[in-house]
Amino acid sequence: MRPLMLIPLLALTAAAPKAPTTPSEIVAAAPENAWATIPADELLVMDLQKGGRVVIQLAPAFAPVHVANIQALARAHWWDKASIYRVQDNYVVQWGKNESKDPLPAAVVAKPPAEYWRSTQGLWVHPLGYPDAYEPSAGFAQGWPVGIDSKDGTANLVHCYGYVGVGRDLAPDTGTGGELYAVIGHAPRHLDRNIAVVGRVISGIESMSSLPRGTEALGFYKERSQDVPIASVQLASDMPAAGRPSYQVMDTTSPAFAAYVKARANRKDDFFIRPAGGVDLCNAPVPIRPTPAD
Amino acid sequence: MRPLMLIPLLALTAAAPKAPTTPSEIVAAAPENAWATIPADELLVMDLQKGGRVVIQLAPAFAPVHVANIQALARAHWWDKASIYRVQDNYVVQWGKNESKDPLPAAVVAKPPAEYWRSTQGLWVHPLGYPDAYEPSAGFAQGWPVGIDSKDGTANLVHCYGYVGVGRDLAPDTGTGGELYAVIGHAPRHLDRNIAVVGRVISGIESMSSLPRGTEALGFYKERSQDVPIASVQLASDMPAAGRPSYQVMDTTSPAFAAYVKARANRKDDFFIRPAGGVDLCNAPVPIRPTPAD
Repeated sequence: MRPLMLIPLLALTAAAPKAPTTPSEIVAAAPENAWATIPADELLVMDLQKGGRVVIQLAPAFAPVHVANIQALARAHWWDKASIYRVQDNYVVQWGKNESKDPLPAAVVAKPPAEYWRSTQGLWVHPLGYPDAYEPSAGFAQGWPVGIDSKDGTANLVHCYGYVGVGRDLAPDTGTGGELYAVIGHAPRHLDRNIAVVGRVISGIESMSSLPRGTEALGFYKERSQDVPIASVQLASDMPAAGRPSYQVMDTTSPAFAAYVKARANRKDDFFIRPAGGVDLCNAPVPIRPTPAD
Repeated sequence: MRPLMLIPLLALTAAAPKAPTTPSEIVAAAPENAWATIPADELLVMDLQKGGRVVIQLAPAFAPVHVANIQALARAHWWDKASIYRVQDNYVVQWGKNESKDPLPAAVVAKPPAEYWRSTQGLWVHPLGYPDAYEPSAGFAQGWPVGIDSKDGTANLVHCYGYVGVGRDLAPDTGTGGELYAVIGHAPRHLDRNIAVVGRVISGIESMSSLPRGTEALGFYKERSQDVPIASVQLASDMPAAGRPSYQVMDTTSPAFAAYVKARANRKDDFFIRPAGGVDLCNAPVPIRPTPAD
């Protein structure tokens, strides 16, 4: 029996002479000007003590105060020796210094505003083109998936797989950015517009998603000995330039991106019998790649 | 700092005197007649050699030939000493006897029909009530989430988190049921109507979703020594009646279920600032519970 391949997320076929038709072919063929390098101070690099590096792209266009807090916390080495203390199946992994009494670094805004959505002004939106169950419409802006309410002119960053948000208590202004979570299951879109989404894991999510699930309520680890220690969290901009991680994100206003979304909605890979003719916002992840060597 | 709770999937508050308003309160308050016990021969019980039990509910109403194959394979102990050999992050866990030359049990249909959708005739549909990106409409029928195309009168079982499908090769009739996969990420709805969905994991998904990710293409494990051995797979009906697993599923035509879906779309738990006013098909999982003791 041959290995049953199911659907490759990344097609493995070598470049063929024909025009690119699958999502991965379109991404591979996208011209240089369809890519933008992510600024080094918008990359948060988390190294786990037992090995495993998680790289998070921050989203200052959507949650500027929270992102500035996270940058300040990283610069102050806030998370060095912090830990992952919650892993809830089909939901989130959460880390930080839960119940810590350490004073916050001076640059951190203790009660940031509720940056759960923003004005669409200044956003250049590529519409998804298919219905959304949560917002009047959906699309992509500045390289990110967004829910859009054109009646009130607002857009929100959404909770897709791998997206990172700021844990908070019941009051909206209780999340400084010190406790973060990443989605490891079906997109919990009901959290959209209720929490500050601050970025997305662009590399290494498997170091978190494969952790043992916590057995306490909400997936908290029962014993502190189960916590997964974090060695360090730093901004790429604070690492030596040689060898630090660097990534590029596809320009969501580019023709290549429009072709990619269309192909995600109409899969023509050999495996498919009946293309869906639609795609949901979280099933058309914005392409990211390591910055190519010069 | 108090533990940041984020959103409880199951509320922890004790039963209050007020009417149930959160999804979990509604489920807890549902009357006995809103629940149906799953027949024991529709429960597939997989025990991993290193510990961990996964219980799968089969869906004969949607893929009768494939489900009959799976029942025959279980009765023939097909998967005893089989293994999990593929774990692809945000996609699927896959198991079986990949590349095995063992002859199929006589009762197994070697080339089953493409049971990827069915007629809506005989289905009692509760509409989701919110838009779907993949099908003209979405809802629930016979206790399962379905995509619905009322133009051609068909419905398909969908790939939500934890749902189980039959691996196949490129030709549609190449999946016997011997190689199965379960979704461990954002719902890959583009697979709907392209593969036979045969059931869902109703207990123990964390034994599969927390496994190390495979490093080969498509998440296959590189070395056979990485494969995760399966001790046995059996139908609950073939286990001693005392102590075998038993579960109940909520009747998706019941008033309790309608109230539950509405509450999932309009979360009023204390945490929420702005209920979504919508929910997607895979974020309103059909409630399942262990059968209560008499």
